[in-house]
Amino acid sequence: MKRYEDLSPSLRCIMTPGPVEVDPRVLRAMSFPVLGQFDPEFTDIMNETMGMLRELFATNNKWAFPVDGTSRSGIEAVMVSLIAPGDRVLIPIYGRFGHLLHEIAERCGAEVYTIEKAWGSVFAPEEVISAIQSFKPDVVAIVHGETSTGRVQPLAEIGRACREQGALLIVDAVATIGGVPVETDAWMLDAVIGGTQKCLSIPSGMAPVTYNERAEAKLLKRKQVERGLRTGEFEAGELPPVRSNYFDLSMLQDYWSPQRLNHHTEMTSMLYALREGLRLVLEEGIQARHARHALHEEALTAGLTAMGLELYGDPQSKLTVVTCVQIPEGIDGESVRSMLLNRFGIEIASSFGPLKGQIWRIGTMGFSCRENNVLRVLGALEATLLRHGHPLPAGLGVQAALDVYEANVR
Amino acid sequence: MKRYEDLSPSLRCIMTPGPVEVDPRVLRAMSFPVLGQFDPEFTDIMNETMGMLRELFATNNKWAFPVDGTSRSGIEAVMVSLIAPGDRVLIPIYGRFGHLLHEIAERCGAEVYTIEKAWGSVFAPEEVISAIQSFKPDVVAIVHGETSTGRVQPLAEIGRACREQGALLIVDAVATIGGVPVETDAWMLDAVIGGTQKCLSIPSGMAPVTYNERAEAKLLKRKQVERGLRTGEFEAGELPPVRSNYFDLSMLQDYWSPQRLNHHTEMTSMLYALREGLRLVLEEGIQARHARHALHEEALTAGLTAMGLELYGDPQSKLTVVTCVQIPEGIDGESVRSMLLNRFGIEIASSFGPLKGQIWRIGTMGFSCRENNVLRVLGALEATLLRHGHPLPAGLGVQAALDVYEANVR
Repeated sequence: MKRYEDLSPSLRCIMTPGPVEVDPRVLRAMSFPVLGQFDPEFTDIMNETMGMLRELFATNNKWAFPVDGTSRSGIEAVMVSLIAPGDRVLIPIYGRFGHLLHEIAERCGAEVYTIEKAWGSVFAPEEVISAIQSFKPDVVAIVHGETSTGRVQPLAEIGRACREQGALLIVDAVATIGGVPVETDAWMLDAVIGGTQKCLSIPSGMAPVTYNERAEAKLLKRKQVERGLRTGEFEAGELPPVRSNYFDLSMLQDYWSPQRLNHHTEMTSMLYALREGLRLVLEEGIQARHARHALHEEALTAGLTAMGLELYGDPQSKLTVVTCVQIPEGIDGESVRSMLLNRFGIEIASSFGPLKGQIWRIGTMGFSCRENNVLRVLGALEATLLRHGHPLPAGLGVQAALDVYEANVR
Repeated sequence: MKRYEDLSPSLRCIMTPGPVEVDPRVLRAMSFPVLGQFDPEFTDIMNETMGMLRELFATNNKWAFPVDGTSRSGIEAVMVSLIAPGDRVLIPIYGRFGHLLHEIAERCGAEVYTIEKAWGSVFAPEEVISAIQSFKPDVVAIVHGETSTGRVQPLAEIGRACREQGALLIVDAVATIGGVPVETDAWMLDAVIGGTQKCLSIPSGMAPVTYNERAEAKLLKRKQVERGLRTGEFEAGELPPVRSNYFDLSMLQDYWSPQRLNHHTEMTSMLYALREGLRLVLEEGIQARHARHALHEEALTAGLTAMGLELYGDPQSKLTVVTCVQIPEGIDGESVRSMLLNRFGIEIASSFGPLKGQIWRIGTMGFSCRENNVLRVLGALEATLLRHGHPLPAGLGVQAALDVYEANVR
């Protein structure tokens, strides 16, 4: 039989748009012994985590809990639960993950309308609002922070327009939650999905979601108690049932309610990680955390610019937590990435579709978003580009970043 | 702001049908720093894990990988991918989790036929075979080990019949994998789903699945490349596309193939846990592991019987890893469970539906399945029943279990 070695992953400096490095406190939380899913100690942890998620999402919503899967499981759970087959769904697309929302809505059986914006920019609110007024969708689904292009879409006016037009607004905040303001209640977002492995710096594996009473009202019209748990006469809902059992939020909320109606078996160790990661966010303070992300972005972009590199995309809509860099003419972007990983232990990302081979993406997210990492990636990128024969003024990148840090001493 | 305390879960003796205790080696593996999902070190770990899963499932199938979610995510992924809307699906039901398969098949848009067996027993193979011959299903889905009743369904003859009749056979082996023989190839099972938090003793969070070429052939007829990743002309498949993006096995297999086509972000820390848990299984030896589960069941049931308690269900079909015990007349089962948890730190389970309040379920699974745990639960249950005024011959339970262990010294 083949022998399998001890696990011993290398220590990496991960400067991608996720997954990023994880705080040792979160890693340690996962190593605690497990509790049973209905053990009162465990259900207390579930309840506490819901409270922390409400703070994270800036909401008074009753429902805020993780879906047990990676980020896109949260997106699919919200969409399949809130989009009934035949619903009219508007999807404004300005990057790869807008196409994912289109894909999922289509598989939900929706009648999908899309509007598209050139990659590298975002929508003016009135463009989306006018589409809402003419298409009259039941649901609008949009990405808040698009990691494929490093852009952030303003949402407050879109939220108000959806409310006025009676559409539900679903927001993919996977990339932004914990790094950039996400104001669920103030912006009138009906359902929001966050990611763990980006600005929250928790390993991939859970997808925190929140939704309000407008969203819940729709869910309850589709509600079914699971076969095998039903008692008494079964009544069908007003709308067709949700096409998924695993992702049916009306069942998940019963599991997360004091009723604790059996559904899946909650992921114990991932919940420990989520709770510890959220504790770190709340200890730092949500606003202080956003400011930290902005500071390190400033240092990184100053350094890249000083090296003579060009940033990609419209600066007005730049997402602080992902910086897209044009790969210089004549440089093999993948060769640079490999050298960074193999010689320096640093990971940066490429991109998708039309941007593949055109840009690198450097993340400054969560625990990875810190001074020594920013200085390290700038120094290593300079050395790697010089080694690839790209002429650049040696030394300036790191110095420019240090200037930013020294000017921002608190 | 509310202050949240340090996490410090109590140490529990978990003798339920899952989640069960986790080997410290697996807990430690989760505390290793994360790697990026496309880091060659990480993709090596993915490939190694696939090899280990093939050994676990006793298969030469090309495809064996985890679905990123709890056990029922694996069930739903296999069902929604292999059941096209309108397909004829036969579900033999002999407990709560058969009803779950019915529920999921229905949500997949299948035309579902069920046959039911009284809880506490299983089907004679010919009963299922005759239903296959008369219904002519496209797909048969069945539970291998039913934790709600503690029964195990023989599958070899059903597998052969499905092959002869051209039906795909999907098997829920969530409760049995790693504790009871599951012979994917020898029994001609087309797709099998395992669970992590039961006999594998890994925290809940992943669902290993395997499927063969017959299953893959059906998948490929439904295949779509994701919007946002498509290049060139899009061709629709022969059968309707899978209704889920997250659970589309034709996409998951591209992600797990050398192609590494972007889909979800693999759960790093859970994969570390899965790999370490599988290493423990392979180090112990799969057959030795099954024998260990059988030994501790023998000791447990000898002890329970010596205490004068009655076991539930048909002994011919008893599942070694779950022992169902009749709650004695006049005893409040939930009060006994609470006292075991609060005084002794031991968790045992109740059951579902018609068995709620009728039986306790005691698991002997994975890392929880060991001599000191069996002796501990017997001693504590005796003391608790005495405290509840139930007359029983003090001391006999633990002695009977010790007799079994002494007779089995190797």
